[in-house]
Amino acid sequence: MTVNSVIYVNQERLNNSISRLAEIGKLPDGGVRRIAYSPEDLQARELVKRWMTEAGMNVRIDAAGNMIGTYPGQVEKAPVLATGSHIDTVPSGGIYDGTLGVLAGIEVVRVFKENNIKLIHPLEVIVFTDEESTMLGSKAMSGNIVSNPEYYRRDDGTSIQACLERIGGNWDKLSTAQRSKSEIAAYLELHVEQGVVLETVAKQIGIVSGIVGQNRFNIAITGKANHAGTTPMEMRKDALVAACQVVLTVNNLAINSQGDMVATVGAFNVWPNAANIIPAKVEMSLDVRDIYLYNIYNLAINLQKQISVIAANTQTKISMQPTLRVEPTLAKTEIKDAIAQSCRQLQLSYHHLPSRAGHDAQEIGKFTDMGMIFVPSVAGISHSESEYTSAEQCSQGANVLLQSLIQLDQLYPV
Amino acid sequence: MTVNSVIYVNQERLNNSISRLAEIGKLPDGGVRRIAYSPEDLQARELVKRWMTEAGMNVRIDAAGNMIGTYPGQVEKAPVLATGSHIDTVPSGGIYDGTLGVLAGIEVVRVFKENNIKLIHPLEVIVFTDEESTMLGSKAMSGNIVSNPEYYRRDDGTSIQACLERIGGNWDKLSTAQRSKSEIAAYLELHVEQGVVLETVAKQIGIVSGIVGQNRFNIAITGKANHAGTTPMEMRKDALVAACQVVLTVNNLAINSQGDMVATVGAFNVWPNAANIIPAKVEMSLDVRDIYLYNIYNLAINLQKQISVIAANTQTKISMQPTLRVEPTLAKTEIKDAIAQSCRQLQLSYHHLPSRAGHDAQEIGKFTDMGMIFVPSVAGISHSESEYTSAEQCSQGANVLLQSLIQLDQLYPV
Repeated sequence: MTVNSVIYVNQERLNNSISRLAEIGKLPDGGVRRIAYSPEDLQARELVKRWMTEAGMNVRIDAAGNMIGTYPGQVEKAPVLATGSHIDTVPSGGIYDGTLGVLAGIEVVRVFKENNIKLIHPLEVIVFTDEESTMLGSKAMSGNIVSNPEYYRRDDGTSIQACLERIGGNWDKLSTAQRSKSEIAAYLELHVEQGVVLETVAKQIGIVSGIVGQNRFNIAITGKANHAGTTPMEMRKDALVAACQVVLTVNNLAINSQGDMVATVGAFNVWPNAANIIPAKVEMSLDVRDIYLYNIYNLAINLQKQISVIAANTQTKISMQPTLRVEPTLAKTEIKDAIAQSCRQLQLSYHHLPSRAGHDAQEIGKFTDMGMIFVPSVAGISHSESEYTSAEQCSQGANVLLQSLIQLDQLYPV
Repeated sequence: MTVNSVIYVNQERLNNSISRLAEIGKLPDGGVRRIAYSPEDLQARELVKRWMTEAGMNVRIDAAGNMIGTYPGQVEKAPVLATGSHIDTVPSGGIYDGTLGVLAGIEVVRVFKENNIKLIHPLEVIVFTDEESTMLGSKAMSGNIVSNPEYYRRDDGTSIQACLERIGGNWDKLSTAQRSKSEIAAYLELHVEQGVVLETVAKQIGIVSGIVGQNRFNIAITGKANHAGTTPMEMRKDALVAACQVVLTVNNLAINSQGDMVATVGAFNVWPNAANIIPAKVEMSLDVRDIYLYNIYNLAINLQKQISVIAANTQTKISMQPTLRVEPTLAKTEIKDAIAQSCRQLQLSYHHLPSRAGHDAQEIGKFTDMGMIFVPSVAGISHSESEYTSAEQCSQGANVLLQSLIQLDQLYPV
């Protein structure tokens, strides 16, 4: 058979692997606790390593502790195609987040092996280190590690050096984990959506347009406290009235922006916060996410303009200070096209959407072509024992991963 | 001389009395602490009683502890004209709040006495009991006392029976303190404004249109907590966005209402109040005050309508529960006219305005004709050592009180 004919992953085998890995760190409620560098993480890595080896991969651990299984290609020295994700979890996580991407990658290789298929490019399946906390694994690959090891010290006091040693890494040689476009031609990650979009639009596959950037601001409004009974409306400097105008302005700017921007005021505190006193001060958070940095800047600039008008109209002072900035990472158009083509080939419905959660792909996308495939999360729930994606949905995602890798293999030169 | 010729209060004597009374309960910062039933209150009452007696009044204490000085009229059995206020203070009060009304009343009687003037009606100057806390004195006169004495127990545990006994009252005979229109033809109270209106419009005298009613509500908005990053704008049930629309609706309804309504959201709390979580719940207070009950109801009805629209648009649930209702008391038109006429006679500028703070007049106005005269409070400050009204402003107010009483004496039949 040729690599262009339709081959499928083994749904039962894939989901058996997911169930088997879920046993390690299993919580009484059905969730899983497999924190990076923990005994459970180590045990899970051993199992995954065995599966990689059994699937015909050579397995190595880089200095950042990333476990990299390589399935040989027809052209040994060609840049690799890579897939993967992570198997560490949050303290009370679900069994699909991260795990699906790793085990689907292994399942794809199993299918290649049993069909005697070799791609032109070598194929790497990567288990990234500590995605849920520091993203140390993927950041080491993109060269974005903080040089001070104290930054990575664990909450229990363990040094990052000791942690990396446990899993076969080496802090002192961390720079050797860095990769480049010439080594990895493209990276494609399958992940559960962790949101409600696919379920809401009733599509089977999500084609990720990029991983959103995130800017955070603190906005402070200062008015004047006064007696709620004796101060006429026209003599007030009501910080809450001004703040509410800011919140609605933010909301309108986000709703009316082109694309998929989200903007949220989540924290909102009023002083002195008493029924009979006109509010003197409000402080609020603003969190803005979009895959285009331009859109985020645009919102910030427009908001700043409207804030000046609000401040003048309400006789308040309003300040807006940036507190966090994470750059967006865009998916490569050719990879999105390959995913869409695979969906059509597999007769699966699909929907383009941004990833609003962080993923290892956002780091890898900083130095090479990146794409992501989403499968639905029931009710959008993740980081919870209730996280669920059906066996069929998992295998649909894995099949799209398989077909997309075959297409990318044709697309990228050796 | 006839009572229609222009006579004036003695500014120096009035302000000496204010300064002298301010010595009792004086605080190091210049403020005064003269809590009802306290030793300072008792001492102040003794001094005021002496001044009343010296001014030619017969002094009695009613069962509610109200001190009532009566200056005889030409027709002994005629219904009285009454003025007065209170001499108790908040724990850290100013020296004009209440005191001015009582001492101006005594000063007016002093002027009558030294000019050998008797009005047709007897004139009462009343020191009401405990205005700053329970308004027990004026409420006993209007017959609005809570029958359970526990309601009036002091924070230090003292029973109201013991408190009243101290000042010459008698809880068991409280009903004897109740008065009627046939006894008091009209009540006129001079008070400092405790707001910024007169200062802002640069007028010397305020003619009070009424004491506002106050309705309070709790408004609760229930949305749905969700991840601020992964939930698209159109899939949100953001309780804060809904709450801000409610706040601005309240503000607009109050600004656009006819007259002098004020509406305030002062307490405002958001859950879970985290930067990366869409707010699930907001609870807020709403305080609405107006001299016309109709306006308050109108705002509540219009708000309820708009809340339904907001809830539907934002996919939230919004409830609005009343928590407090105080009826407004309107000033009598003829008394307002008499005050205005007095101002013109004295060449003092005046401005009509509602009283948004509570006063004894609001209770007395429930059973007889009522009016109030305001003089400016510097920067609107009250209940503070910074409370200030100049000696000239105090005597201007007292002169308006004097002239208005002379007019009312002609107006009311005997």
